Amino acid sequence: MLKLAMVNDRITPLESLDPIYFDRGIYFGDGVYEVLRSYNGKIFALEEHLQRFATSLAAIRINSVDLGHVRDRVERAFTTAGLSNARIYFHVTRGSAPRNHVWEADLEPNFFLTVGDAPDSTEEKAKGITVSTHPDWRWKRCDIKSLNLLANVLARQDAVDKGCEEAILVDEAGCITEGSGSAFFAIIGRTLQTAPLTANILPSITRQYVLKAASNIGLAIKEDCLTPPQAAAADEMFIAVTTKDIVPVVRFDSTVIGAGSPGPHTKALMTEFRKFTV
Amino acid sequence: MLKLAMVNDRITPLESLDPIYFDRGIYFGDGVYEVLRSYNGKIFALEEHLQRFATSLAAIRINSVDLGHVRDRVERAFTTAGLSNARIYFHVTRGSAPRNHVWEADLEPNFFLTVGDAPDSTEEKAKGITVSTHPDWRWKRCDIKSLNLLANVLARQDAVDKGCEEAILVDEAGCITEGSGSAFFAIIGRTLQTAPLTANILPSITRQYVLKAASNIGLAIKEDCLTPPQAAAADEMFIAVTTKDIVPVVRFDSTVIGAGSPGPHTKALMTEFRKFTV
Repeated sequence: MLKLAMVNDRITPLESLDPIYFDRGIYFGDGVYEVLRSYNGKIFALEEHLQRFATSLAAIRINSVDLGHVRDRVERAFTTAGLSNARIYFHVTRGSAPRNHVWEADLEPNFFLTVGDAPDSTEEKAKGITVSTHPDWRWKRCDIKSLNLLANVLARQDAVDKGCEEAILVDEAGCITEGSGSAFFAIIGRTLQTAPLTANILPSITRQYVLKAASNIGLAIKEDCLTPPQAAAADEMFIAVTTKDIVPVVRFDSTVIGAGSPGPHTKALMTEFRKFTV
Repeated sequence: MLKLAMVNDRITPLESLDPIYFDRGIYFGDGVYEVLRSYNGKIFALEEHLQRFATSLAAIRINSVDLGHVRDRVERAFTTAGLSNARIYFHVTRGSAPRNHVWEADLEPNFFLTVGDAPDSTEEKAKGITVSTHPDWRWKRCDIKSLNLLANVLARQDAVDKGCEEAILVDEAGCITEGSGSAFFAIIGRTLQTAPLTANILPSITRQYVLKAASNIGLAIKEDCLTPPQAAAADEMFIAVTTKDIVPVVRFDSTVIGAGSPGPHTKALMTEFRKFTV
């Protein structure tokens, strides 16, 4: 039985606290999330994101969330925000309760969503970004889009401290898994290479569309382990993320990729991808 | 720029929301925590816990927390609660901000603490508990006591669903690391065995005191990989956790340990441990 709580320097009676303070999301990261974006007033790949969200919920055994209800909330918030190019974030946690690893079966999940402008990535897309590698410290179920993201945060901050925009994670076997918040791709000759879908990476929706775009423009696709030295020797490189779709990479650690500007296949993929978003 | 937020079914202006909704603790599990208990009106091993907390904060690069300030808060809350045998939980997150993996250097950390009764573990200590094994899905920095605990939660719930009290985590090399919320020990002959301190386990304070107690009663200590079959063949077994100190284990998956009741060395360790808490 809890007796009291303290928020910063203030001791507070328990009943005066918003239940959010006891959210299992904050105690344990016990929840899952999605990020969506819209292009010109239309949410991109909403059904795919909802389907993945359902898979994440099931994987952590949150069973009481109605997907149609989530869809309604997302659409209502998006319409109310009135942004043409919006970034929509939402999560569901298992609910609020005094801290205990074991959960009560009847907990009411907590839903939280924000809508804001999608980032303007015009300059990044035109010039390309730089990335640095970091050991992949994440857990063994990266296929679940969970709120346990401290490894991602530490890797991204390390990259930013090195003057880069994204961290590329490398597992203990020496294979690149993905970026700290993006999928990772290299182009070698006329082959697009990326990590295979396993429990080590997120089944990225943008990745699906990138592979479709690659197929449309006649690139071969190889889903296999790529090491940092192999990546550094690639002709072209890019990351893919919901909020910005394809972003070219022009430097990988200390190695300039290709001519140091977005390559021709990457540009063709960006053009092809745009067709999906109209 | 964020435009609006939604909490469950309610769309809310951003400025009306408690900043806790934007806590990086909930977005990323970007924080660290400690659990303390008191025995008979005195907090046990407060300095060791504060020191470990400082190490965790430094490991995730939260640099602006004054440890003396944390100690004052803990002592003030404990005194106010007026519980003789109290369980004290507290965490610090990096602060509240719109969601972005990259952090702002000047963020104000959020502190949250609760005080409640320490659990009564009399019966568990007398009869022993049962445990079941689960793959260790956690990240590669389990030496940091972070809020990324979803792997622990899923493992513990799996154990409870199997009628057990604790999950014992087994890594990919086949070694037992620790429990989902406890340190793990086996006694083989007159040797106490537990996993060595690496990035794969938490540097448990209770573990330190257990090793001291073991040394006091003349047990040899072996810090080495223990596999589930080796553990199942042990003479005695127990877990150790701040809130309950030593709890005997009498069944490990389907194997009854020893005579199916707490063994003599475990009982001697419990008696010895009690000397530290008076």
